[in-house]
Amino acid sequence: MTIKAVVFDAYGTLYDIQSVADVTEQAFPGYGDLITQIWRIKQLEYSWLRSLMQRYQDFSAVTRDSLAYTLRVLGLQYDDATFARIMDKYLHLDLYPDALAALSALKGRKLAILSNGSPDMLNALVANSGLDTVLDATISVDERKIFKPSPDAYTLIESTLGVGPSEVLFVSSNPWDAGGARAFGLTVAWIERVTPEAIALACVDNEMIAPLTMFKAIRTQMDELGFAPDHRIRSLSELPGIVAFHES
Amino acid sequence: MTIKAVVFDAYGTLYDIQSVADVTEQAFPGYGDLITQIWRIKQLEYSWLRSLMQRYQDFSAVTRDSLAYTLRVLGLQYDDATFARIMDKYLHLDLYPDALAALSALKGRKLAILSNGSPDMLNALVANSGLDTVLDATISVDERKIFKPSPDAYTLIESTLGVGPSEVLFVSSNPWDAGGARAFGLTVAWIERVTPEAIALACVDNEMIAPLTMFKAIRTQMDELGFAPDHRIRSLSELPGIVAFHES
Repeated sequence: MTIKAVVFDAYGTLYDIQSVADVTEQAFPGYGDLITQIWRIKQLEYSWLRSLMQRYQDFSAVTRDSLAYTLRVLGLQYDDATFARIMDKYLHLDLYPDALAALSALKGRKLAILSNGSPDMLNALVANSGLDTVLDATISVDERKIFKPSPDAYTLIESTLGVGPSEVLFVSSNPWDAGGARAFGLTVAWIERVTPEAIALACVDNEMIAPLTMFKAIRTQMDELGFAPDHRIRSLSELPGIVAFHES
Repeated sequence: MTIKAVVFDAYGTLYDIQSVADVTEQAFPGYGDLITQIWRIKQLEYSWLRSLMQRYQDFSAVTRDSLAYTLRVLGLQYDDATFARIMDKYLHLDLYPDALAALSALKGRKLAILSNGSPDMLNALVANSGLDTVLDATISVDERKIFKPSPDAYTLIESTLGVGPSEVLFVSSNPWDAGGARAFGLTVAWIERVTPEAIALACVDNEMIAPLTMFKAIRTQMDELGFAPDHRIRSLSELPGIVAFHES
């Protein structure tokens, strides 16, 4: 088996969505991390619910709606400029430190992103982080008007890159995305961005850490969806080894 | 407009899923409430994800998988008998105190449950709680092999009761279910089982209450899905008034 394309999830896999916390903390001192956790959980829920309701709106709308929900439930007051400043951070998320080197080390294969993000969000993010120079394609599910983990979303890899499922390595930190890709028939490497050890360590008697720890745990630990990933990794630097393993 | 049928969601609307906490607390002292909150959030996620992945398994499998996930993430050890005892509580959930009187007061209309629950789970639950004497039908989404809020699930009301969407009042405490039913075209009463005031009151400096409060908040506060309910109520006893309002 040859891996002809390595395709990455964007949010949480190449880009650290927790890096939004700097901006949310500045806007709402003491609430930064909590906002990002609730925001993320609702952003995902709304993407799945809208898909299931057959009421698709793009990820930029879903991201806006879930932020509005989060600030309302937390009882936080805000003006339009504050809201816009937080949203804008989604176009300037930090790359994970292992991302650029890993992509460069995989040169020679087709490299792409397949993300729930809207084309506008993804194109800005990729350009702002310099990944446009190493990626062959930035694929948004928007073309199919349904979000991952719908199989329709994963078909975009073959229709865009011309590489069939059996020759694709798909990389995601999101357990539901790893499961969806596996169910679709891709070879999947799941990157564990928050380890069980880190969660256990964070469980101290600190009233702000406790809820955050729980939210992180339920977003980052492997799900029970019946589709285990082919590989579990803790750094993107393990990818060249996995590609070589499949070719040996 | 005449309301010819009043159709209820089961879990969280007629039945108190938090009543599982007695059993989980007995099995895992100190973790009872936390288990029920994480279990519920994952139970819902798995129902939506499996629907979207086109990998339906019934709610009994989803409920089992999400409980296994919860105990694993919390690092709790258990034997098969303990697991089975917790699962069994789902067949004996407590009725909310306002449920039976409200159903009796609505006599004369068709009364039914439309639930994500599997037929086995629902039939046991309805019989164990005595609701089988007042309900005309207990409808499981299982027939369509997809979970709410897919429109396919809500079509079962008309195909089972013979009452079209414009003559149905649908009642749910679950914001995503209220939104899905509204998007489908039903008249919807959303019952707020946990009020913002209750959440604010619970936000004291108690390390166990803080995460629970957040979990309850994100499960019970109205979502931003673009489909607001027609009615917001705080007790099922308000339903006869709403039915009369529509007929006046």
